[in-house]
Amino acid sequence: MADRKAPIGVFDSGVGGLTVAREIMRQIPDEKIVYFGDTARVPYGSKSRDTIIKYSRQIIRFLKTQEVKAIVVACNTASAVALEEVREELDIPIIGVIKAGARTAAAATRNGKIGIIATETTINSKVYTHFLEELNPQLTVIGKACPLFVPLVEEGTFLNDPITEEIASRYLEGLKKEQIDTLILGCTHYPLISSTVGRVMGNQVTLVNPAYETARELKALLKEEGLENTEQKQDREAMHTFYVSDTPDNFRKFAETILPCSVADTTQINIEKY
Amino acid sequence: MADRKAPIGVFDSGVGGLTVAREIMRQIPDEKIVYFGDTARVPYGSKSRDTIIKYSRQIIRFLKTQEVKAIVVACNTASAVALEEVREELDIPIIGVIKAGARTAAAATRNGKIGIIATETTINSKVYTHFLEELNPQLTVIGKACPLFVPLVEEGTFLNDPITEEIASRYLEGLKKEQIDTLILGCTHYPLISSTVGRVMGNQVTLVNPAYETARELKALLKEEGLENTEQKQDREAMHTFYVSDTPDNFRKFAETILPCSVADTTQINIEKY
Repeated sequence: MADRKAPIGVFDSGVGGLTVAREIMRQIPDEKIVYFGDTARVPYGSKSRDTIIKYSRQIIRFLKTQEVKAIVVACNTASAVALEEVREELDIPIIGVIKAGARTAAAATRNGKIGIIATETTINSKVYTHFLEELNPQLTVIGKACPLFVPLVEEGTFLNDPITEEIASRYLEGLKKEQIDTLILGCTHYPLISSTVGRVMGNQVTLVNPAYETARELKALLKEEGLENTEQKQDREAMHTFYVSDTPDNFRKFAETILPCSVADTTQINIEKY
Repeated sequence: MADRKAPIGVFDSGVGGLTVAREIMRQIPDEKIVYFGDTARVPYGSKSRDTIIKYSRQIIRFLKTQEVKAIVVACNTASAVALEEVREELDIPIIGVIKAGARTAAAATRNGKIGIIATETTINSKVYTHFLEELNPQLTVIGKACPLFVPLVEEGTFLNDPITEEIASRYLEGLKKEQIDTLILGCTHYPLISSTVGRVMGNQVTLVNPAYETARELKALLKEEGLENTEQKQDREAMHTFYVSDTPDNFRKFAETILPCSVADTTQINIEKY
C-alpha cells in the first residue's frame, strides 16, 4: 500500500512543465510535488523517440528514489512517445498530458475541426490525432509543428512582441485556412504565449491548455486509487521540492515568474547516473 | 610518437561545427576527420559552464577511443568554457575556435571597435574579450548574446526570411550604434546566416568567421608537431566518419547541405557512457 502522504512526481524537459505543476497546486493544494526539469538536455521536441524514452526512464528512476506515489509526465513530447513504453514497467500510476488535452478539445469543438500545435516529435508521433479519432472518428485533426515557440518562450524578451506574433502568424496560417474552431496547445511552454496565439487565431477559436484537465485527471485518479493526501498542510510555501539536471539559477528565475510558491529549494542532480 | 595517419577529432554540440569541418576539408584535404555532434543534448549555448565541461570531457574520452591525433573543439561555447580545463588532462594537441577568431578580428579592425555575437554562455564567459584585450589592450570589445539564432538555423525554413532579418536587426541594433567595424560570428551556426547578418550590419562591417582561421591554425599545428598526414588519400569521399548522440537522420539531412562529402557513415553512440 502506497503512502498517501507521499509526493507526486512531475517531470518535463525543462521549465514548461511548471505550467502543469501550477495547475496541480491550484486544484489539489494539499498534495506535495517533487518536480524534475531536465535543463541539461532540454529541449526534447526535436529529439528522437528512443532518446526521449531513455531520458524518461532515467527521470522515472530518479523520481522513484523520492518515493513518489504517482507520476505526471508534464511534457507533451515525453507523453507522446514514452508514456506507453514506461507505464508497463511501473508499479505506481502515471499519467501524461495528451489524453486530457484530447478529451477537452473533443468536447469543445462545434464544427469538428481541431488543430494541434506542438513540437516536431509530438506532431510526428500522431498521438493526439490517434486519441482524438478514438474519441470521435468524425473529427478532422490537423497538426502543425512550431519548433521556434519553445526557444522564443525560453528567450524571455520576446514574449509579447511583434516578432513572436509574426512567427505565430506564419505557423498558424494553414490552421486558420482550415477553419479549425479548437486549438490544442500541445506543448507545456505554449500557455506562456497563449495571448499571442489567441490574437492570431481570433476569438472564434477555443484554445485548449491540457494542464487544467491533467490536474483534474490526477485528482480523480488519486481518489480512485485511495492515494489522496488527507492531511492538511500547514506550510504550503515550503512543501514542494525541485530538481534540475543543470545548475539551478536560470530555472529558479523562470520558475519564480510562473509559480505561486518558493523555488528556493532547487537542487541539481546528475540524471545520467539513473 | 603519434600516428600521422590517425584522424583529427572534431566536435560540436550538433551540426554547427560542420562549418569548421568543411573548412578543414578544404584547407587540409588529406586529413581524415572523426566528427562528433552531441545531438541528444544540443544546444549548449544556454547551459552552465560545469555541464559543458562534463559533456566535453565525455566527448574527448570518446574521441580518444577513435585514436585521434589532435582535437578541434568546433563549438564556441565549449571552446569558451571547457578548453583550458580539458587541455591539461590531454596528451594530444587540442585547439578551439576562439583564439583564431580573436586574432583575425584584431588584424581586421581599423577603428578598434570589435563586436562579438555568440550564445549566452560564450558571451558571459568573456573569453573573446579576454583574448582580444591580450592581443591589443586598446581595442573596444562589445559582446551580444543572440539566443534565437541557433534555433532559427536549426529550424531550417527561416534561413533567408524577413523574420530572421527582423530578429537580427533587433539583436544587432546596439552593435550598430557603437559603430563597430568588425563582427565576430562567435558561434559555428552563425556562418549559415551570415548573409542576413551582413545585410543588417552593412558593407562597412567585416564579418569574421573563425572557421577559416581555425583550419589554418590546425594546419600549422600539425606541421609543427610533425603530425601531418603525408599519405595522399585516394578516396576522399569515404575518408571521414561521423558520430552523433541522437538518431542520425536529421543530422545526415543537415550535414548533406553543408559538407562536400558523404555523411552516409553516421553512427549513433551512447555518449553518457564515456
